Amino acid sequence: MGIPEGSLTAKPSWRLKSIVTVALTLLTSSQAILIVWSKRAGKYEYSVTTANFSVEALKCALSLAALSRIWKSQGVTEDNRLSTSFDEVKVYPIPAVLYLVKNLLQYYIFAYVDAPAYQILKNLNIISTGVLYRIILNKKLSEIQWAAFVLLSAGCTTAQLNSSSDRVLQTPFQGWIMAIIMALLSGFAGVYTEAIIKKRPSRNINVQNFWLYVFGMLFNIIAIFIQDFDSVMNKGFFHGYSFITICMILNHALSGIAVSMVMKYADNIVKVYSTSVAMLLTAIVSVFLFGYHLSIAFFLGSTVVSVAVYLHSIGKPQR
Amino acid sequence: MGIPEGSLTAKPSWRLKSIVTVALTLLTSSQAILIVWSKRAGKYEYSVTTANFSVEALKCALSLAALSRIWKSQGVTEDNRLSTSFDEVKVYPIPAVLYLVKNLLQYYIFAYVDAPAYQILKNLNIISTGVLYRIILNKKLSEIQWAAFVLLSAGCTTAQLNSSSDRVLQTPFQGWIMAIIMALLSGFAGVYTEAIIKKRPSRNINVQNFWLYVFGMLFNIIAIFIQDFDSVMNKGFFHGYSFITICMILNHALSGIAVSMVMKYADNIVKVYSTSVAMLLTAIVSVFLFGYHLSIAFFLGSTVVSVAVYLHSIGKPQR
Repeated sequence: MGIPEGSLTAKPSWRLKSIVTVALTLLTSSQAILIVWSKRAGKYEYSVTTANFSVEALKCALSLAALSRIWKSQGVTEDNRLSTSFDEVKVYPIPAVLYLVKNLLQYYIFAYVDAPAYQILKNLNIISTGVLYRIILNKKLSEIQWAAFVLLSAGCTTAQLNSSSDRVLQTPFQGWIMAIIMALLSGFAGVYTEAIIKKRPSRNINVQNFWLYVFGMLFNIIAIFIQDFDSVMNKGFFHGYSFITICMILNHALSGIAVSMVMKYADNIVKVYSTSVAMLLTAIVSVFLFGYHLSIAFFLGSTVVSVAVYLHSIGKPQR
Repeated sequence: MGIPEGSLTAKPSWRLKSIVTVALTLLTSSQAILIVWSKRAGKYEYSVTTANFSVEALKCALSLAALSRIWKSQGVTEDNRLSTSFDEVKVYPIPAVLYLVKNLLQYYIFAYVDAPAYQILKNLNIISTGVLYRIILNKKLSEIQWAAFVLLSAGCTTAQLNSSSDRVLQTPFQGWIMAIIMALLSGFAGVYTEAIIKKRPSRNINVQNFWLYVFGMLFNIIAIFIQDFDSVMNKGFFHGYSFITICMILNHALSGIAVSMVMKYADNIVKVYSTSVAMLLTAIVSVFLFGYHLSIAFFLGSTVVSVAVYLHSIGKPQR
């Protein structure tokens, strides 16, 4: 990756790391609740690709707004100026391309894998992120932290078990291959984003985000052309958008920014733990909001996830 | 407990420890397979209390047989003579009484807890054994080993999940209390047996077993009187015994002796890990023997149990 070793060692404060982690956890858990809420309000009426584009556009706008405040207070510096070099920006399209390919694959995987099985297989992301984090960023996890990572993925899957989960065992070979490819794409995109952001530690995160999101918008336009061109032409770009759609776009935009912040001030491992804990929080909140019943599998999975978080924290590699 | 500290430190060989552990694992897993086999062959026709008595009697006979061989080769010594003092033998009835009370409670708990829920609640034994092992034997587990123990119990429970498991959440308060009391009785009996056996490290294990089993027989006679007196009087002691009943009694006797050996040369923690791994082995063997299907919950639970075994082994307390 050619990241200078020294540039990775600038340690952000413990406080900043905690704030972005908690923000990501809360935003991710409310995200899932909004999805449940929107589903109860009826089926999706809007086009998912235009919503994704709107999320990227909103993130761009929010990054610019944050930058303009910073320019006012600190003036334009080498680190916070928007203009960039080809050398800096050339790697920025890569995560956007990876996510685009992954999102397109998502439409085809359902030919081989049904929805309950897909829910289970998505937990392969946890493992792929850990492995790629190790390989690409060349950062070490201790033996205990690896064990914790396996537990995190087993615990998350256990917590999501329901009576249809066993269908995953009937997944054909092609389904497994696609699920593994999707997990690798998603893990690679996450780890690559971290590499890009951390390569220039002093560069302002809002500038880095701005360029990431510009390419996000660009590749989402391609997705709109591939998947929803007719529907957008006939019904319009914002057809079917409701109040809850707007809430979801706002939430996705904010959690996207929180992910970037976690990449800047923490890492992909923290991101994975944070979104896993968010999944558990969502389920608990859903008990109160929607009268969901928690299963014994949920309690067992939560126990395993909690132990994983504990082991990860006590298992820091000795240096 | 008044166990002299020094007497606990005589370390048995690693090889002996491994042999008894593997023996216990294999015997326990074949035990469950025999139970499945006997159930498929039809309902239990025999009285369970007389079978328990027969197991104790057989264990007594096997201990005496082993002793007579030892006497022939080594002669009668202070450590292998059968005669005992009141001071040595006074604690031997305690585990037998605890098991008797636990077995009697087992008949009453089903008023509050149904069978699938009981299967889940039985895993509380793992936790109670760990806690009582710590308190009574005053042996330390490291933080990682405690985490591993919680994982072992969550993993075993996960592996046993099926569509009826959620009934455990409807267990009334009395059911939970009884399940916890039973777990404590069973954990206490196990840990107390270890304390008795380890109190005199140089005493021959077959003599210690002989006296344990004598009291086992005695208290099982009481159980026969309480539960099956009429049936034994009318139909006879061995009524309904089949070939498979005899196999089960033989297996129970051998695994009982293996448990004692594990207590002597290893400890209750090893016993719990060994019986947990046996549970997984049973399920895998049942796929081939009875055409069982393994669930995704089984794979997840097995993963968690495997990680627990790994963590326990790397997590030895630093001295």
